[in-house]
Amino acid sequence: MRADGRLPSELRKIIIQPDYLRSPAGSALIRCGDTWVLCTASVEEKVPPFLRDAGTGWVTAEYGMLPGSTHTRSNRGSSGRGKEIERLIGRSLRAAIDTARLGPRTITIDCDVLQADGGTRTAAITGGYVALCLAVRRLQQAGLLSADPIRHPIAAVSVGVIGGEALLDLPYEEDARAQVDMNIVMAQTQKGPAFVEVQGTGEQGTFDRRELDRLCDLAEGGIAQLFAAQSQALSEENPKGVRP
Amino acid sequence: MRADGRLPSELRKIIIQPDYLRSPAGSALIRCGDTWVLCTASVEEKVPPFLRDAGTGWVTAEYGMLPGSTHTRSNRGSSGRGKEIERLIGRSLRAAIDTARLGPRTITIDCDVLQADGGTRTAAITGGYVALCLAVRRLQQAGLLSADPIRHPIAAVSVGVIGGEALLDLPYEEDARAQVDMNIVMAQTQKGPAFVEVQGTGEQGTFDRRELDRLCDLAEGGIAQLFAAQSQALSEENPKGVRP
Amino acid sequence: MRADGRLPSELRKIIIQPDYLRSPAGSALIRCGDTWVLCTASVEEKVPPFLRDAGTGWVTAEYGMLPGSTHTRSNRGSSGRGKEIERLIGRSLRAAIDTARLGPRTITIDCDVLQADGGTRTAAITGGYVALCLAVRRLQQAGLLSADPIRHPIAAVSVGVIGGEALLDLPYEEDARAQVDMNIVMAQTQKGPAFVEVQGTGEQGTFDRRELDRLCDLAEGGIAQLFAAQSQALSEENPKGVRP
Amino acid sequence: MRADGRLPSELRKIIIQPDYLRSPAGSALIRCGDTWVLCTASVEEKVPPFLRDAGTGWVTAEYGMLPGSTHTRSNRGSSGRGKEIERLIGRSLRAAIDTARLGPRTITIDCDVLQADGGTRTAAITGGYVALCLAVRRLQQAGLLSADPIRHPIAAVSVGVIGGEALLDLPYEEDARAQVDMNIVMAQTQKGPAFVEVQGTGEQGTFDRRELDRLCDLAEGGIAQLFAAQSQALSEENPKGVRP
Amino acid sequence: MRADGRLPSELRKIIIQPDYLRSPAGSALIRCGDTWVLCTASVEEKVPPFLRDAGTGWVTAEYGMLPGSTHTRSNRGSSGRGKEIERLIGRSLRAAIDTARLGPRTITIDCDVLQADGGTRTAAITGGYVALCLAVRRLQQAGLLSADPIRHPIAAVSVGVIGGEALLDLPYEEDARAQVDMNIVMAQTQKGPAFVEVQGTGEQGTFDRRELDRLCDLAEGGIAQLFAAQSQALSEENPKGVRP
Amino acid sequence: MRADGRLPSELRKIIIQPDYLRSPAGSALIRCGDTWVLCTASVEEKVPPFLRDAGTGWVTAEYGMLPGSTHTRSNRGSSGRGKEIERLIGRSLRAAIDTARLGPRTITIDCDVLQADGGTRTAAITGGYVALCLAVRRLQQAGLLSADPIRHPIAAVSVGVIGGEALLDLPYEEDARAQVDMNIVMAQTQKGPAFVEVQGTGEQGTFDRRELDRLCDLAEGGIAQLFAAQSQALSEENPKGVRP
Repeated sequence: MRADGRLPSELRKIIIQPDYLRSPAGSALIRCGDTWVLCTASVEEKVPPFLRDAGTGWVTAEYGMLPGSTHTRSNRGSSGRGKEIERLIGRSLRAAIDTARLGPRTITIDCDVLQADGGTRTAAITGGYVALCLAVRRLQQAGLLSADPIRHPIAAVSVGVIGGEALLDLPYEEDARAQVDMNIVMAQTQKGPAFVEVQGTGEQGTFDRRELDRLCDLAEGGIAQLFAAQSQALSEENPKGVRP
Repeated sequence: MRADGRLPSELRKIIIQPDYLRSPAGSALIRCGDTWVLCTASVEEKVPPFLRDAGTGWVTAEYGMLPGSTHTRSNRGSSGRGKEIERLIGRSLRAAIDTARLGPRTITIDCDVLQADGGTRTAAITGGYVALCLAVRRLQQAGLLSADPIRHPIAAVSVGVIGGEALLDLPYEEDARAQVDMNIVMAQTQKGPAFVEVQGTGEQGTFDRRELDRLCDLAEGGIAQLFAAQSQALSEENPKGVRP
Repeated sequence: MRADGRLPSELRKIIIQPDYLRSPAGSALIRCGDTWVLCTASVEEKVPPFLRDAGTGWVTAEYGMLPGSTHTRSNRGSSGRGKEIERLIGRSLRAAIDTARLGPRTITIDCDVLQADGGTRTAAITGGYVALCLAVRRLQQAGLLSADPIRHPIAAVSVGVIGGEALLDLPYEEDARAQVDMNIVMAQTQKGPAFVEVQGTGEQGTFDRRELDRLCDLAEGGIAQLFAAQSQALSEENPKGVRP
Repeated sequence: MRADGRLPSELRKIIIQPDYLRSPAGSALIRCGDTWVLCTASVEEKVPPFLRDAGTGWVTAEYGMLPGSTHTRSNRGSSGRGKEIERLIGRSLRAAIDTARLGPRTITIDCDVLQADGGTRTAAITGGYVALCLAVRRLQQAGLLSADPIRHPIAAVSVGVIGGEALLDLPYEEDARAQVDMNIVMAQTQKGPAFVEVQGTGEQGTFDRRELDRLCDLAEGGIAQLFAAQSQALSEENPKGVRP
Repeated sequence: MRADGRLPSELRKIIIQPDYLRSPAGSALIRCGDTWVLCTASVEEKVPPFLRDAGTGWVTAEYGMLPGSTHTRSNRGSSGRGKEIERLIGRSLRAAIDTARLGPRTITIDCDVLQADGGTRTAAITGGYVALCLAVRRLQQAGLLSADPIRHPIAAVSVGVIGGEALLDLPYEEDARAQVDMNIVMAQTQKGPAFVEVQGTGEQGTFDRRELDRLCDLAEGGIAQLFAAQSQALSEENPKGVRP
Repeated sequence: MRADGRLPSELRKIIIQPDYLRSPAGSALIRCGDTWVLCTASVEEKVPPFLRDAGTGWVTAEYGMLPGSTHTRSNRGSSGRGKEIERLIGRSLRAAIDTARLGPRTITIDCDVLQADGGTRTAAITGGYVALCLAVRRLQQAGLLSADPIRHPIAAVSVGVIGGEALLDLPYEEDARAQVDMNIVMAQTQKGPAFVEVQGTGEQGTFDRRELDRLCDLAEGGIAQLFAAQSQALSEENPKGVRP
C-alpha cells in the first residue's frame, strides 16, 4: 500500500485547465496531485541561427521552479538540473510536431512549476503538449499554417522501483527513496503507443531487463490515461475557438 | 468612461486566495482584474551578513514575471525594472513588521507574476502582506515568537492621470498612456491611514501639488478596500490554523 | 541645529564645474557638500531596439559608485540599488527633453560618484542635466538638430524627517537615521515649478499628508537654488562654445 | 555496410592510457575511434554542503569540449548540453562506488574532450571509471581508506537505429542522422551485467519495445568489451603502484 | 617635434593631489597631461584565502575606466585589458612594500581613470604608490604597525618608438601609432634605480637590444622626475598628519 | 646544478606534434618537459566589429587550463591571469602574420594546457605559431590567399634569476622561487632575431640593466632551438599536405 493509498499502477488525480492565461497563444495549468505546472506556448516569427533560411520552424522549452514551490525555498535562476530538464521537454515536444509545417517561426513552451511534489518534468511535457496544440490552433485560425503540423499526441509519466516493487507516478516522498527512477515519454501514433524518450536511472541500484520491461508496462498504462486527459482538455476549450 | 467600464475611483475586482500552496510557510494568490501574482513567504533561520549578531530578523522580497505573463513573451532572469520593484516590495513589507521581534531569521517574500495587466508591483505588495502574515502566524503557532511582530497592515495601489483625469488602479492599457503614474503604499495605523511609500512619475508630463493631492485621495480610497480584502482573506484561512 | 550647522531649509554648498572633461560631448562635476558626482553625456548615432525606425531619440543613464567613494570600500559592479537609481535618473532626464527632436540618436548620461555623503542620486540628476544641455549644445553647434529639444530645466534634492523635523538636503549621517526620506525631482516649467518624480519612503516610520506637504515645500525651495546654480554653470561655459 | 567498414555490432577501436598525466590522483586518456576524452580524478578533503557532517563522500563530474575538438570551433564555457552530460556522468560514476566508504572527501572527475566524433559522453564514463579507480587506489596506498569503496565496474556505449538497422557505437556522421539514439550505462555486477542508466531518444522518430530490446542487446555486447579494456588498462598501470 | 611641442625625453605636466578624497585611508588624483587617474587605498582587516594564517598582509589593485573617459564612450565592467592592467598594478605596488610588516590586512588600490589620454596604467602605478603610502601612514599614526613596511618608492612611465625615434610618455595619439610600446616600472632603491617590471611590445614591429637600451634610458630619466613629484606630494600632505 | 640536472642555459626536452587533431585547420601538441599545451587554429570567415569593412583579417587567442593540469585541481572558467595570458599570446602571434593578407577572416588560436609545469604561456606561443602556420597552409592549399601572410617565425621562452643566477626555461618549482621572472617572445627576422615582447617582473626583488642583458642573452639562445623545433615540426607534416 502506498502512503497516499494508491495502487502501484494508479496515477495521481490529474486536472488540466486549458487556456488558463489570457496573453500567450496557448496555455495550460496541469495538476498531477500536488505537482502543479503552468505551461505556456508563445509564438515568435523568427527561428534560431542554425535554422536561418531553412524554411522550417522550431519548438523549444524552458523550465523553472518558483522559489516557493519546494519545501525548502529554492533559489531563482538556472541550474544544471533545470538545463537537463528543459532539454528533455524540448526534444519531446519536437517529436509531436512537424516543424517543417510550422513555417519560419519558433514556439517556446515555458513550464513553470508552481508547486513541486515529484514528476515535474513529466507533468511539464504532458501539459506542454496541450499548450502547444492550443498555440497551433490559434495559428491555424489565423490562416498562418497550410497544413496541420501536429503529428501525434505525446505525454509522459515517471515510474520507479521501491523495495522491489514497480510503481507508477511517484510523488516526491517515493522518488527520494526509489532504487530505480524512470521518466518515459510516449507518442500515440497510428500504429499504437511508441517511445519518444526513455530515461532510466539506478542511482541507488542497478536494474535488469525484466524490471525495464515491467516499468515500461506500467508507464504505458498511465500514459494512456494522460492521453485521454489531454484530449478532454483540448475539446473543452472555448468552443468559439477565438479568444477576445 | 474607462475602457473596462469602471468609474475613475473604482478598483478592479480583487480576489485573494490565502494558503494557495502547500509548501511555503505562507502564500497567497492575488488577482486584481487580469493581474495575477503568486506570493509566497519562506522562513529561513539565518540573517544577511549585515545583521549578523544583531539579534533582529529581516524581510526581503524577490519579484519575477513568468515569460508567458505578458502579451509578448518576456525573457527569464533579472532586469533593472525587476530590481527596482523588488526593492520597493521589500521596503514596504519591512514597514509592516517589527523585525526585532522576528528573532534571527529571514522571511523572503517571492512575488511571481502569472499574468500581467498593470499594477503588478502594487498587487505584489498587497498579496505579499497576506503571505507574510500567514508565515508569521505559523511561527507563532510553533511557539517561535514571543510577541506579535506585525505592526499594521500595508497595501498598495496604482493611480494615474490620463487626459487630465485622475484614475485609480490602472490596467496596462491605461498605464501605457498615463501622463502621471503613481504607486502608493499605505499602512493602516492606529492613528489612521498613513503613507509608507509614494512613488510618482511624470514621464510624459509633470504634475503639481493639486494633482498630487487628488491622486493621494484616490489611492487612500482604494487602499481602504484592499485592507478589507486582506482582512477577509486572513480570516477565511483554515480555522484550525494548522495545515496537515 | 544640524551637525554641520545648517538650518533645516538650507542646502549644502553647491559647485558645478561644466565641461570638466575633454572627451565627452558634455560633462559636469557637481559637488554638493562632500557628495561629488562626475556626470558625462555621450552621444551615439543609434537608438535602442524598441525605437528602431521610430525617428525619435533616447536618453538613458548609468550610475556607479567608485569603490573608494564610501567610508567602507564598496565592490565594483552593478547592484539592485544602482539599477533603481539609474532608472530614476534616466526617467528624470527624459522629462527634460523632447526626444522626438533629438533625431535617431542616444545620449547616455553616466553618473559616477567620486565621493558619497548622501544625496548621490539627486546630485546626479542635477549635474546630469548640465551635462545633457552641454551635449545638446554641441549637437546644435554642429548643425545636427533642427530645433532645440530641451523642454525645461530639471533638478533634484533629497528631503527627510528626523525627530519630527523636516530637513532639506540630507548628508549620509542624517539620511541613515531619517524616519522618512524623500527624493524630489522638479522641472522649471513656464507655468512654474512642477513635479517630475516624487519618491518618498518611510522605512523607519510612516508619514501623513501634512508631512508630505511640508517636505514638498522644503524641496521646492532647495530646487529653486539648484536651478540657479545650473543656469550659472551653463552660462559660465566656454564663451566660444566650441572646444578645440 | 557502415561508412567506416564496421559491422553493426562492432565497436570502434578503443585505447585507454592509464595515468596519462602526472598531477591528478588518477587520469586516463580514452580514445574511441576519433573521439578522445581526457579524464582526470582529483581528490579534495571536503564534501558539498548537503553532505556536511554525514560522514560519507561524494563523486561528481565536469565535462567540457575544447574549442578545437569539433569541426566548427565551439565556444568555451558551459552549455545546457554540457550540464545534461555532466549530470549523467556524475550519476553513473556514483553507481560504481560506495560513497560511505570514501570518507568525507570528494572525487571530481573532469572529462575534457580533445577530439569529438560522437559518443563523447559514453567515452567519458568509460574512461572516467578508470581515472576514478586509479584515484581510489592512490587513497588506498596512502592508507586513507579502510575498505575498498569500488562496487563494480561501469562502462557506457551509444547505440542507435539508422534506416531501421540497430548499430553499436555511433560516430558523429551516424549520430546526426539516427532515428533513435540511445546511451546505455551498465555495471558488471556479481549477478551479471545490469543497467545503471538507459537514455533513449527518438528525436527523428519513435521506437517500440522490440527496438528497445535490440538496442539493449547490442549495447550489452559492446559494454562487455569495454569492461575488458578497462580491466586491462587498470592492470597495465605502473606495477610499483606508486608514482614518484 | 612632437604634436604637443615636447622634446623626445620630456614628460607631460604632472600634478599629484594627495588626500583628494575624505573617506579612503589614502587617495591621490594624478594628472599626467590629459590622463587623470583617481587612486584610492582602502584597508581591510582580512587577507585572501591563500594567505590565511600566514601572518602577512596583501596589496592588490583594481582598475577601471569611467565610460566618459575616452573619446568614444566605453562600456562599464571588466575587460581582458583591464584584468591585464590591474595585475600589473598589483604586482608593481607589492614590490614597494614588505607585506610581512603589514600584519594580516589587505590594502586595495583602486585606480579609476577619469580621463584617458595614453599611459593610464603607468599613471595608476605612480599615483597608486602615493595613495598606498598615505594609507600606510594612517596605519602607523593609529599605532597598528610596528615597523615601516614601505621598502622604496616605485613609479612608472611609458616609452615607445615612432618613426625610429624613442619617445618618453606617449599620449594616446602617439601610442596608437608606435611601432614599439613599453611600460617600465622602477624602484628607487638604496643602490639606485632598478627595474620592477619591463613590458615591451612590438605589435607593429620588432625591436632589438639597442632600442631596448635606449628606451630604458629614456624611462629612467622620466621616472626620476616622477619620484620627485611623489616625494613632494607626500610632503605637502596635511602637516598635522591626521584628517578630521 | 638545477633540480632536474639541466645546465642554466639548457632547455627542457621539447616535442612538437603537428596536426595532432583531425578537425581544426591547424593544430599542434607541444610538450616542454612536463608542460603540455594543445594548440589549435580555427578559421572563421568573419572579423571582429572594429575591423568591419577594413578588408584585413585578425588573429586572436584563447588560453585555458584543464582542471586536472595542476597539482591542486583548478576551477574551470576565465581568470584575470588567463586574460592576461591570452592577450600576450594574441599580440605575439599577430606579430608573425600580415593580417592584411589574410582577407576578412579570423584565425583563433586556442591554447589548452593539458599539464602545467611552468612556462605554459611561452609554450602556447611556440606551439601556437605551428598551429597558425598549418592553418595558413590549408588556406593556401584551398586557393584562398593570394600571398603568404606569414612574416617570420616567432617563439617564446621564460628566463629567470634564482639566487643570483640566470636560468633558462623555468619549471614550476623554479618559477615559484625566482627573484626575477621574464617571458621573452622573439621573431626570426631576415635581419636576425628580434624582440616581439619582453615581460620581466621582479615580484620578489628588482633587477638592473646587467641582469636584463644576461636574461636576454639566455632567452635568445633558447629561442634559436625553439625555431629549429618549429621548423622541423612544420616540415614533418603530412607530405601530401592535404588531410582527407
